[in-house]
Amino acid sequence: MAVIALLTDFGTQDIYVGVMKGVIWSICPDAKIADLTHEIPPQDVTAGALALWGAFKFFPKGTVFCAVVDPGVGTSRRAIAIQTREHFFVGPDNGLLCWAISESEVVSCVELLNRDYFLPTISRTFHGRDIFAPVSAHIARGIPLEEFGPELRIDELVKLPPLRAEINDQVIRAEVVIIDRFGNAITNLRAENFVKWEKELGQRGWVATIGDLTFNSLSSSYAEVPVGEPLLLFNSYGLLEVAVNRGNAAEQMRIRKGDILEIRVKGSDGG
Amino acid sequence: MAVIALLTDFGTQDIYVGVMKGVIWSICPDAKIADLTHEIPPQDVTAGALALWGAFKFFPKGTVFCAVVDPGVGTSRRAIAIQTREHFFVGPDNGLLCWAISESEVVSCVELLNRDYFLPTISRTFHGRDIFAPVSAHIARGIPLEEFGPELRIDELVKLPPLRAEINDQVIRAEVVIIDRFGNAITNLRAENFVKWEKELGQRGWVATIGDLTFNSLSSSYAEVPVGEPLLLFNSYGLLEVAVNRGNAAEQMRIRKGDILEIRVKGSDGG
Amino acid sequence: MAVIALLTDFGTQDIYVGVMKGVIWSICPDAKIADLTHEIPPQDVTAGALALWGAFKFFPKGTVFCAVVDPGVGTSRRAIAIQTREHFFVGPDNGLLCWAISESEVVSCVELLNRDYFLPTISRTFHGRDIFAPVSAHIARGIPLEEFGPELRIDELVKLPPLRAEINDQVIRAEVVIIDRFGNAITNLRAENFVKWEKELGQRGWVATIGDLTFNSLSSSYAEVPVGEPLLLFNSYGLLEVAVNRGNAAEQMRIRKGDILEIRVKGSDGG
Repeated sequence: MAVIALLTDFGTQDIYVGVMKGVIWSICPDAKIADLTHEIPPQDVTAGALALWGAFKFFPKGTVFCAVVDPGVGTSRRAIAIQTREHFFVGPDNGLLCWAISESEVVSCVELLNRDYFLPTISRTFHGRDIFAPVSAHIARGIPLEEFGPELRIDELVKLPPLRAEINDQVIRAEVVIIDRFGNAITNLRAENFVKWEKELGQRGWVATIGDLTFNSLSSSYAEVPVGEPLLLFNSYGLLEVAVNRGNAAEQMRIRKGDILEIRVKGSDGG
Repeated sequence: MAVIALLTDFGTQDIYVGVMKGVIWSICPDAKIADLTHEIPPQDVTAGALALWGAFKFFPKGTVFCAVVDPGVGTSRRAIAIQTREHFFVGPDNGLLCWAISESEVVSCVELLNRDYFLPTISRTFHGRDIFAPVSAHIARGIPLEEFGPELRIDELVKLPPLRAEINDQVIRAEVVIIDRFGNAITNLRAENFVKWEKELGQRGWVATIGDLTFNSLSSSYAEVPVGEPLLLFNSYGLLEVAVNRGNAAEQMRIRKGDILEIRVKGSDGG
Repeated sequence: MAVIALLTDFGTQDIYVGVMKGVIWSICPDAKIADLTHEIPPQDVTAGALALWGAFKFFPKGTVFCAVVDPGVGTSRRAIAIQTREHFFVGPDNGLLCWAISESEVVSCVELLNRDYFLPTISRTFHGRDIFAPVSAHIARGIPLEEFGPELRIDELVKLPPLRAEINDQVIRAEVVIIDRFGNAITNLRAENFVKWEKELGQRGWVATIGDLTFNSLSSSYAEVPVGEPLLLFNSYGLLEVAVNRGNAAEQMRIRKGDILEIRVKGSDGG
């Protein structure tokens, strides 16, 4: 009955993902397999980490997340598995798992070294098939984490910079971390952090700017502005995004990943 | 054992579809989930309605279709669920479900208002996750439709123009409603309507034109004409399409969605 | 509990694949369905055969492979099903299945002619839905192969040229047979054949060339060379490929499908 959720940068034009499913079902025939996405830009660990963070909380207790965005495959980078109170995470130790883990209570973390749970032959280019898929399937079968290798401390793991905008009294600097299929430009500013900041402003308002665009307020749905007009809203991830009602904000407003959205207290310098 | 079939415009590069599966399996762990397609052009309700119409009859009795092409998300557009003799349909009330419904015997139709069956927090941008996925999962668990909200009459629902070409004695005007992956240009002319029309012609023949192309007969398979040559056939949807044997009709013949294919009785004006 | 693995050139923007799943679950509600890939280039039987060959060995015993890359649909090309010691293969008789079959012990092979196991109406354009999906589902239900039609001899089937590089004493000519999502250029040279050839060289070395690139050695992982540098390795298929560490070899080195990589004994003519 276990769910195994796959997240990779393998795309779907090759057989890599299909082969991982064959391996999983060879070991754990009852597993339900969900494709989170396989369209993470090749080798973009940050995009993978964001996707995993945005998705994991919606999966049933016991779900095994098998995440493979792995530019260091075949090098000495560690392969790891982490058990939290609700879920399991399997993947390379390169930061891919860190944002999801940071919001969970970690129960156990191990380095994957026990070859009994790998495929018999380990390639140096496709650990998704040879290590991560079989280990995920064995976890779904109920094998306890300590079987897979020695315990690691969480603070030994590779980490990405926190998923959080730069915030001070006068200004928030939020970075566009991903452009989604609809062209929405999603930043690293979290709703809870903005709410707190705005509260402290009291009566003073704020102005948000990105490129030539200026906003003085948030929308709460796309359709709140006329068709074709830009808006600013906290999206379903709980992150601030720039969108265009029935349009493509990234294309129309020329916003790119890495661009900065600045929110300044009204009347402050440069606002 | 229930099947839940997903149809969206979410694409597969983001986690939106994966998250819907997590929500579904959290509520109904036994559901089988089929991806009908997630590549409906963003916000193209007509393309979504056509896809649902073409697919639904091939699914087992009891299948729940969870369809989300929803440009009005967060506005006052209704969310609905419909039970027919064979299937269930869940989605926004914007015409997306209407063509599938029009060929089924409707048993019940409700507006989704009972928040007990939604996720605890409802965003204003992602009702696929917060409303349509959980409701579909609860239906798959066997919750009766009346639990979800007040009954609606079918004639209260938003409808698209019928999926049907304009037909009179002298001429059929069929519109290209979708270009598929192979470049086949699929029109809204149904086989049964054409057969009836052609029968009434008696000995007189017909000429079909679209752009610079002219056809005097139908093919019954792609390979009936030489490689690279265009043809006209009733496809697996039962709709007339323009194709090229082992080629891409839309690209090679510059046919676009919305173009008109005219079929005239031979010898009639402009034929 | 049976797994049905789908391999097609149908893409995922249309409903063709979703409809096949509806048909399968209507006949065999317990089947687990894996998408091997649906992004085989339209009508490219060779690419489909390679994908099936690379994937099939990783699937559980009893898996039914339903493979549809079928430019001859609606013509007199045969539809076939093959049982090997481990698996079942269903598809058109156009070479698509031949490389997977060539490495398996064939138990039975039949032509699909018994319409009792097809959908009631057979289109001439979509045998994936009307023949191959329902037959695969009936096989997954346990219907014996002889029920589907008359026995065929393996040597009666359509075959592709063997998946093997040209090898003689002095030189290996390996052809690029596929470019994958990462831009890796995968050739038809198998690891086992190269190892044997290299052994016979004794102390003499070799030089590999493709376009302007020259290699004197193999790498065993992508990260063995500096970022942006090209390398030569035997990949997870067991086939020789040209790759670029964290880059796209096909784009950066202008390698295309059909290009030849030549490996010559050092000091031999043209080496």
